[in-house]
Amino acid sequence: MRARRETGEGGGRSKAIVLLSGGLDSATALAIAGSRGHELYALSVAYGQRHASELNAARRVARAFKVRRHLVMDVNLDAVGGSALTDRRVAVPETPTAGIPVTYVPARNTLFLALALGWAEALGARDIFIGVNAVDYSGYPDCRPEFIDAFEKLAALATRAGVEGGAGFRIHAPLIRLSKAEIIREGGALGVEFGRTVSCYQADAQGRACGRCDSCRLRREGFAAAGVPDPTRYHRR
Amino acid sequence: MRARRETGEGGGRSKAIVLLSGGLDSATALAIAGSRGHELYALSVAYGQRHASELNAARRVARAFKVRRHLVMDVNLDAVGGSALTDRRVAVPETPTAGIPVTYVPARNTLFLALALGWAEALGARDIFIGVNAVDYSGYPDCRPEFIDAFEKLAALATRAGVEGGAGFRIHAPLIRLSKAEIIREGGALGVEFGRTVSCYQADAQGRACGRCDSCRLRREGFAAAGVPDPTRYHRR
Repeated sequence: MRARRETGEGGGRSKAIVLLSGGLDSATALAIAGSRGHELYALSVAYGQRHASELNAARRVARAFKVRRHLVMDVNLDAVGGSALTDRRVAVPETPTAGIPVTYVPARNTLFLALALGWAEALGARDIFIGVNAVDYSGYPDCRPEFIDAFEKLAALATRAGVEGGAGFRIHAPLIRLSKAEIIREGGALGVEFGRTVSCYQADAQGRACGRCDSCRLRREGFAAAGVPDPTRYHRR
Repeated sequence: MRARRETGEGGGRSKAIVLLSGGLDSATALAIAGSRGHELYALSVAYGQRHASELNAARRVARAFKVRRHLVMDVNLDAVGGSALTDRRVAVPETPTAGIPVTYVPARNTLFLALALGWAEALGARDIFIGVNAVDYSGYPDCRPEFIDAFEKLAALATRAGVEGGAGFRIHAPLIRLSKAEIIREGGALGVEFGRTVSCYQADAQGRACGRCDSCRLRREGFAAAGVPDPTRYHRR
């Protein structure tokens, strides 16, 4: 979680993997990684999520930021279930609920970071960016700073560097302590066009948001608090 | 990494997820989990490995141990590459090499444990078994005790239990300090039919082994050291 310009050993830009869901936060994380001088590799995961139009948003954002490569990996988490995002029989809540909501996908960020780590090691990248946030968020356990720190420790042991020595991996979570309004201001300043992003848990095929789920609520309140016009398209209000 | 009989809170058998590749080690880990009284859930991962006949072996072993469910998850690690096991342009070495061999798949066990953790949380299982070994092994970083311990710590933070309290997850690696000969004796005593398993990195479609790769070598030497007849079928010698 460092904030400095990275350069590769050969003087070229060092590679960074950025987990890119297609939502507002990960688009901002991509912009931040780019602003730090990295060569960008975006990783999206098709995991059976309801909101597959997020993946189209991820493709638009990746193109806009001229990533070197955008890899979409497939993992059939719908075979596991346990979440409203991967099991269509479980409804997405449209009013705030106590505790961790049913939209939590078991161990999702552990899985995403594992995929990013494997790709990073294969590419020779040492920096992984993830747009998790622990302020205006849904209370997911794997969005907290202690989770990110534990994964960074794991990554050091899990890979060749853990045996052979050499640089370990840095897991950057540049949004983790920002409010949604601060994320929106930062992303906007770095050229994120938020109209390209989709945050809704149940967006329609055109990427239009429901306006009612937790993710829509946090996003809308963020634009209002930031004083930034909200470009989100809704399919109902 | 505990060795006691597990019972569920309701008095029934507690569930365990067992990572099952179809090789000798994971079959023995499955047998051990069963011997500890768990209800067995086997998880195999189709990750683009060369030796897909391992997955058929996994199905045979899962049936033999009457697992409650055998889930085969798909992850296209061949899109990432970086290993002789997922990239057909990289040859599997047939003589021992110095350091971590090219058969190492970047972050594979991190990924496998992440998938197991997600399924465990969705199922309400608390025990995950993985047949890694750090004695007669290929030197992979993610087979070492410190990696397993770090993942167990991560799992406690990554999941609902990390926020809501309650029992964490136990990552059991019951083979980690055994020699290959000891694993073979233990598995044999628990009813593993090793002829059903496939360990070779480049087995043919019928599951016949090459007899030359690192995995074949460790397996053959293990049978010899254990004084147990080797049932492995070879397609060349």
